[in-house]
Amino acid sequence: MDRAASWAKRDAALVWHGFTQMSSFTENRPVIVDRAEGHELVDVDGRRYLDAISSLWVNTLGHRVPELDQALRDQIDRVAHSTMLGNGNRVVVELAEALAPLVPVDGPHFLFASDGAAAVEQALKLAFQYWANCGVEGRTTYLAFGGAYHGDTIGSLSLGAGGFGTDLFDPLRFPVVRAPGFDDPRCLATACDLVSEHGASLAAVVVEPLVQGAAGMHLAPAAGFASLADACRAQDVLLIADEVAVGFGRTGTLFASDQCGIRPDLLCLGKGLTAGYLPQSVTVAGQRVFDAFLGPDLSERTLFHGHSYGGNALACAVALRHLALLAERDVLANVRARSEELRGLLQMRIEPHPAVRAIRLQGLMCGVELAPPHDGLRWGRRVCASAVERGVLLRPLGDVVVIMPPLTITSGELKRIVDVLAAALDEVTA
Amino acid sequence: MDRAASWAKRDAALVWHGFTQMSSFTENRPVIVDRAEGHELVDVDGRRYLDAISSLWVNTLGHRVPELDQALRDQIDRVAHSTMLGNGNRVVVELAEALAPLVPVDGPHFLFASDGAAAVEQALKLAFQYWANCGVEGRTTYLAFGGAYHGDTIGSLSLGAGGFGTDLFDPLRFPVVRAPGFDDPRCLATACDLVSEHGASLAAVVVEPLVQGAAGMHLAPAAGFASLADACRAQDVLLIADEVAVGFGRTGTLFASDQCGIRPDLLCLGKGLTAGYLPQSVTVAGQRVFDAFLGPDLSERTLFHGHSYGGNALACAVALRHLALLAERDVLANVRARSEELRGLLQMRIEPHPAVRAIRLQGLMCGVELAPPHDGLRWGRRVCASAVERGVLLRPLGDVVVIMPPLTITSGELKRIVDVLAAALDEVTA
Repeated sequence: MDRAASWAKRDAALVWHGFTQMSSFTENRPVIVDRAEGHELVDVDGRRYLDAISSLWVNTLGHRVPELDQALRDQIDRVAHSTMLGNGNRVVVELAEALAPLVPVDGPHFLFASDGAAAVEQALKLAFQYWANCGVEGRTTYLAFGGAYHGDTIGSLSLGAGGFGTDLFDPLRFPVVRAPGFDDPRCLATACDLVSEHGASLAAVVVEPLVQGAAGMHLAPAAGFASLADACRAQDVLLIADEVAVGFGRTGTLFASDQCGIRPDLLCLGKGLTAGYLPQSVTVAGQRVFDAFLGPDLSERTLFHGHSYGGNALACAVALRHLALLAERDVLANVRARSEELRGLLQMRIEPHPAVRAIRLQGLMCGVELAPPHDGLRWGRRVCASAVERGVLLRPLGDVVVIMPPLTITSGELKRIVDVLAAALDEVTA
Repeated sequence: MDRAASWAKRDAALVWHGFTQMSSFTENRPVIVDRAEGHELVDVDGRRYLDAISSLWVNTLGHRVPELDQALRDQIDRVAHSTMLGNGNRVVVELAEALAPLVPVDGPHFLFASDGAAAVEQALKLAFQYWANCGVEGRTTYLAFGGAYHGDTIGSLSLGAGGFGTDLFDPLRFPVVRAPGFDDPRCLATACDLVSEHGASLAAVVVEPLVQGAAGMHLAPAAGFASLADACRAQDVLLIADEVAVGFGRTGTLFASDQCGIRPDLLCLGKGLTAGYLPQSVTVAGQRVFDAFLGPDLSERTLFHGHSYGGNALACAVALRHLALLAERDVLANVRARSEELRGLLQMRIEPHPAVRAIRLQGLMCGVELAPPHDGLRWGRRVCASAVERGVLLRPLGDVVVIMPPLTITSGELKRIVDVLAAALDEVTA
């Protein structure tokens, strides 16, 4: 037994991996990471894998970025963490000041948490309490989309659609008004109609701008989101943009809302916020929402919600340096250039493959949907396993192969990813 | 304007602090932390504050612990983060192996998240799906306690009682069977009766062992929890212990469940897990629960739940070193010795004070409940503000002054905390 198999066995004995059937964990030959260098993960046997899923969509500039590592070391020499409940920390203020001019929110205020799902929970609670604080009754529900994924806690799961067998939890979820998913070209138009119809009962509309990632990388046109924002404004409904997956350059602009021309009332950020280094999420609330919570000290207008490690100083220090690096290295230009290259490579090498049903690409978020002739073939799983064998780490969503490389990926690395995917497709679907 | 006031103003302009009325934030003179040394936080003007709330209950060994800082630096040189979804990381395995013999769970399996609330959400979903996977119908509700606090996401808020004005969110919360709070001496006996009465409909009982922290440090006797565990066993109801606040030595044993003599099916940990350094939480599931999720790959028996940064390598590295330090330094012995000293000091100096209604202490969790003669005096707030002026950082829960020092606090520091509290009480309540 090589070291990798031995570590996988030790891992399976004690660690419960999310979204993973543990009885198949070891036979699916997991990569047990020991260290990393740039865009590559290195396993316990020294084998190298190109991280073509950005460690599950969080990494932006690769691993062990010298400037980010140094920012962490410097903050370690100051303080790792101090509480945000009633007190503050200098680096948190500095991060908020750096984010403020960049986020697509008017008069932004930053409420930090750690899990992305918690940022969504904060947004939905802020929207709910906003109306109560304004003295408006009856605005107690939400409009969300088919195929939506907003996280796995009960509130975020309620906003999400019922994929992955989560219908099981229906008795615990609150109901929402549901628009079609992005796989339906009428989704945004229908959502506008539903906002008009249900306006007076809606606290907020919740949407993933441009791309429904977990649904399988389904895209909706940018212009449709501006219409949705107009519909919300007409009915005085708050707009929540969940950019946990699409934020921080992933779609080719710093935020997907920028391309859509929308200014949401509440914005949820996570994943790329810390460049993929540390848990940190944030709910950004606009001035209108913030102002509705002002009142006498200790009064019921206050937001009684807070996570212990929200505004963690180490996470804020790395996030702050990351923002500067995104600009210094003109990372967005690389995303756009590499996205076009990837589109060309996929059109040439992957789209004609008989096992491929569709390719969906926005910036450096990509889904290659396979077309298995019948159920039970687990093509997504097997194609990705073959790619991992060839040194490119991929992980599917069902039968959609996700390509989600670091934003600093090179032309040569993209070519390698597509070469490996083509070979894996040939091997598995022959 | 001194630097502190200037930074507080910049902070208030952009950072939204949880459990904080932002219109009063600056006038309540927040501490804006610049750095820390041991048990002291240092603000932007260089003023020093003894961290007598352990940065909101998370810190265990003080700040800038050389061994923990070194563990972080070493891990930075390996990798900051890699995903747990379907893959693994060596340091996560090492942490799980170190935790396994210590946690009060039979056949433990570790499902990591970042926010403590997410650990609770994972536990409640695991309990719910457990029964579905076992083919048992109708076990879809929970028994929880009055005064309970389990976090602020909708699921954890549903399990929690309605304090802090959270009744507002009732339309989003799922209902639970509610036992009395720990302020009622019959709480555990009544809970046992309710388990017998509602057994067949209960997925799980959720409890904070020994201490309801956020309720104001209310205590229940250890023996009562063993009876509750017996009642659960008799009715085949799962037992969830939420040790996010009480775990990692806070109550005088490594886990509060140890003192209670209980072995929960699901255990929630957070806060002290990383010594107060980094966001990391974990749900520990017993073998019985874990086994019920085993099945064919990709099947509906799988847990479709996972947080991006669960099993963060940096957080795991510091948590691993922290476990070793707790033993090397015999920290639990210090907790027990200092707890008795604190009890003596409080009995002598604070309990006789006419402004004090009650003192509740378990390990190094302490609540001093004040007795204001009428509403609206904000004694808790003002006594703590006076203590902060005197260089001891306190933060109240309403009119309960919380004393929650690092587990490595010294006799001299405890004496200083009590001296300052006595002076603050005299000043505010004269």
